[in-house]
Amino acid sequence: MTASAVRAMFRSHPDHPSHAEIISRCIDACFSCVETCTACADACLAEKDIERLVACVRLNLDCAAVCTATGSIASRANKAGNRQPLEAQLTTCIAFCRVCAAECAMHADEHRHCQVCAEACNACAEACDMMLSSLRMPA
Amino acid sequence: MTASAVRAMFRSHPDHPSHAEIISRCIDACFSCVETCTACADACLAEKDIERLVACVRLNLDCAAVCTATGSIASRANKAGNRQPLEAQLTTCIAFCRVCAAECAMHADEHRHCQVCAEACNACAEACDMMLSSLRMPA
Amino acid sequence: MTASAVRAMFRSHPDHPSHAEIISRCIDACFSCVETCTACADACLAEKDIERLVACVRLNLDCAAVCTATGSIASRANKAGNRQPLEAQLTTCIAFCRVCAAECAMHADEHRHCQVCAEACNACAEACDMMLSSLRMPA
Amino acid sequence: MTASAVRAMFRSHPDHPSHAEIISRCIDACFSCVETCTACADACLAEKDIERLVACVRLNLDCAAVCTATGSIASRANKAGNRQPLEAQLTTCIAFCRVCAAECAMHADEHRHCQVCAEACNACAEACDMMLSSLRMPA
Repeated sequence: MTASAVRAMFRSHPDHPSHAEIISRCIDACFSCVETCTACADACLAEKDIERLVACVRLNLDCAAVCTATGSIASRANKAGNRQPLEAQLTTCIAFCRVCAAECAMHADEHRHCQVCAEACNACAEACDMMLSSLRMPA
Repeated sequence: MTASAVRAMFRSHPDHPSHAEIISRCIDACFSCVETCTACADACLAEKDIERLVACVRLNLDCAAVCTATGSIASRANKAGNRQPLEAQLTTCIAFCRVCAAECAMHADEHRHCQVCAEACNACAEACDMMLSSLRMPA
Repeated sequence: MTASAVRAMFRSHPDHPSHAEIISRCIDACFSCVETCTACADACLAEKDIERLVACVRLNLDCAAVCTATGSIASRANKAGNRQPLEAQLTTCIAFCRVCAAECAMHADEHRHCQVCAEACNACAEACDMMLSSLRMPA
Repeated sequence: MTASAVRAMFRSHPDHPSHAEIISRCIDACFSCVETCTACADACLAEKDIERLVACVRLNLDCAAVCTATGSIASRANKAGNRQPLEAQLTTCIAFCRVCAAECAMHADEHRHCQVCAEACNACAEACDMMLSSLRMPA
């Protein structure tokens, strides 16, 4: 549902962005990651072994912050414009998603919310990577 | 996809939140609204009749800002806690979604992105209203 | 420094917003509160008695989320426009700031960061209240 | 005022972050930049020559998004931890600030809000650069 809404938006965007499918998938993956990271941070705070999960909470909050920015910036990435900051944003987002996924994966056996979150982080990193590749291809 | 991820998170949340289905639908609707409002603001900026769409851009940005906050706050709404601020947040979110939907609806015939955005805003208002109702029901 | 920058912006805003001084103070107080709430959440996570501070972390994150939205929305509050959602936002922001300040005040003796944060939350609530009052006065 | 609040927070942070002065200046500069970019976008929307300022609005919104993330992430940058994503975030933030400052500078003669915003963007880029340098120095 979400995916089709953003996709429909881009179809009616006057700039007719190339790679609209890839951009809308990236935006969806970013906000899906914001949701899971925010919820994982809160679930970690409710766990009995919270002391062991403090690093996870922090990385969840960092990842949610950077994915919020990436989702917003990607929504304005229709015109050729200045690619260098956009590429830097996607690269940074991938870095936070990978680090958060790795931390969550360490708690995935005990805490199912960490497993779900690790999957969303990895999916977001892949979607950002796809968008990064598409920026380097002809439209 | 998004919906099931957040829903799965709540199922493994140690607090076993009641109304988890309604909360996860509210969170999804909020971030879906963030996506469409952000993309609608950008599409409006690219339209030839931008002067007529300035109010729409501003309401899109306001709505995206408040829905980002609501989606984040709703993710921490598992425990009984203090309901009054949460109810105020949901009520405020509904107000911005309704005003943004009404403005977008005025441009829906000419600009398909405004129509898609109006639908997402109304869906978000309804999901917030459902969550507001559930807060007043016994768990 | 911050205050004068936003104040200077409003002085050159083509809409010549009335109450520019009160709006810019409200925006400054909101982002100052975002800063202290975000830093207080992180300092709480580093404390040995983290279990007792979980509610504080959650309220800090809620307060940071709503103040980010209020600061952004207040920056677009120059035109008469629709006052009802703006008044709802300011009222909601005051509610979260007051609840967060009350929670932080409970830990202020042991944790100085909670005391600093309680002061920033109360200052933000007051600045929002001033803006709310000004909206009801003739320009 | 803002600066001293965050600085006071870090002084009472249990991790005793090194470079607390540089981190708190970076956080202040980020949120000051969020304020001016958000206000500049709104002032541009109110200008008669809005068509010429569309690129400026977009860059303002991008810069506000990335600076919000940087300000939040920098607040959790107390522990050694994983430096690579933090360095990527600061580098990305500098890139957006520089591009936004350059665009604003092009309109600075006609629009004083663009001049104020360009100064805040450059100040933020410098504060991020200082923090980046401090990360590479021994504590």
